[in-house]
Amino acid sequence: MELSQDQPMIAGMLRSHPQPVQGGADRLAQAVSAIATCATVCTSCADACLAEPHVQNLTRCIRLNLDCADICATAARVLARMTQVDTAIQRDLLRACAAACQACGQECESHAQMHEHCRLCAEACRHCEQVCAELARTL
Amino acid sequence: MELSQDQPMIAGMLRSHPQPVQGGADRLAQAVSAIATCATVCTSCADACLAEPHVQNLTRCIRLNLDCADICATAARVLARMTQVDTAIQRDLLRACAAACQACGQECESHAQMHEHCRLCAEACRHCEQVCAELARTL
Amino acid sequence: MELSQDQPMIAGMLRSHPQPVQGGADRLAQAVSAIATCATVCTSCADACLAEPHVQNLTRCIRLNLDCADICATAARVLARMTQVDTAIQRDLLRACAAACQACGQECESHAQMHEHCRLCAEACRHCEQVCAELARTL
Amino acid sequence: MELSQDQPMIAGMLRSHPQPVQGGADRLAQAVSAIATCATVCTSCADACLAEPHVQNLTRCIRLNLDCADICATAARVLARMTQVDTAIQRDLLRACAAACQACGQECESHAQMHEHCRLCAEACRHCEQVCAELARTL
Repeated sequence: MELSQDQPMIAGMLRSHPQPVQGGADRLAQAVSAIATCATVCTSCADACLAEPHVQNLTRCIRLNLDCADICATAARVLARMTQVDTAIQRDLLRACAAACQACGQECESHAQMHEHCRLCAEACRHCEQVCAELARTL
Repeated sequence: MELSQDQPMIAGMLRSHPQPVQGGADRLAQAVSAIATCATVCTSCADACLAEPHVQNLTRCIRLNLDCADICATAARVLARMTQVDTAIQRDLLRACAAACQACGQECESHAQMHEHCRLCAEACRHCEQVCAELARTL
Repeated sequence: MELSQDQPMIAGMLRSHPQPVQGGADRLAQAVSAIATCATVCTSCADACLAEPHVQNLTRCIRLNLDCADICATAARVLARMTQVDTAIQRDLLRACAAACQACGQECESHAQMHEHCRLCAEACRHCEQVCAELARTL
Repeated sequence: MELSQDQPMIAGMLRSHPQPVQGGADRLAQAVSAIATCATVCTSCADACLAEPHVQNLTRCIRLNLDCADICATAARVLARMTQVDTAIQRDLLRACAAACQACGQECESHAQMHEHCRLCAEACRHCEQVCAELARTL
């Protein structure tokens, strides 16, 4: 299963930006798309956990899902902006995003055998963590 | 060009939710995905407009892009939540989202011949407006 | 207890905006401030509910808190923007915000005797609902 | 002028949380409140800049305002959550928030003599930067 595929539209946007994309529009579009998808997946996982009969055992998962959703959503926005980039902000934000994905992915992984939504969310988080780490290296 | 294709991942999340999706997981995933993509596209269009030499002529476009990005991002979150749905909130939010997409799409359309990013953004907004209208009808 | 008092700073911002505020900067600042405070309070109530021993009984409260936090945060942003206002978007968004506050406030009210955080959140929601309704009337 | 004063309500929320606040509820409430106020002020400054006749000279200011608004809004949410805190995420996010406030505050400062909204926004950013740095030290 593809983790995110709305790159074509986002790549089209970045390619038509008046300023050239450092590292290429397709690569950045892939990153923005993966991070934005992770935000939606984490929002959904928090909600699915909330509806589970044993929600009591999933409170740490929900908490990390909410944090990860918020941080990914903000990272996707900041990275999608190419006008007058401030690299220091981007680097710090990518680090925070990778930390959130790491913690959330690990917690979701521990519920993956019980809950398919946690298994999928762990997958999205691990992918997003990698994307953030790779992007941070090139800034 | 497909407007958004991260439905597979989001559909997987909605299908594994403990509560059944009214109207089907794939249909809701398609809607959430289209709305979330429109949020990212509008964020990007605001930023591209800001970098245009004639930004002075694009201030209404930027303002509507920012509103539309915020409202779409919130609508995608609220709609992705399936636990104990409150239909009245969803319907009002879909109406606000459609109104933002309508205004933003129309403004972007008027710059479509000058700016490819505005043309793409108008496309995303029109698609998102339709998605919101259709979803609102079935609530 | 004052529900929100960061109006002085926000009023200062709105008063220094190049475009005049319809209805006065202080009135708008008070509304934006109340709505933004409600967003933070709802975020906090969702989190406090999550830490309660009987979280199972609070899942509807958490869900509505999350929706209300997202919608209020977006409404505060859109209303704080005074450049080239689109009244239709604002009116629809205020209606969605009032609906979210109404549902969330009612749910929190039902837990107010058990949980002080729910009692305070119900108070913030009711105040925010009134503010949205009043502002909507003057648009 | 007080930079933010909705602490009473937020402090009430944090005090009624089932888990005790590390460092005290009032201190955390003050921080969350300052960061949330900075988010609103930056949103307002971006919008005021957009309405200025010489918006062309303010594009870097607008871009940093938008980033700072997004990052502060997310930081306020994550910090307001006290259930099962992950200190690593909070520390990274506070660093990103301080970086955004530092860059935005410096840019706004350079327009402070021309634009009162930039002067106020620089003040809010500097205050928020300090708050983030202090809070990070105690985590």
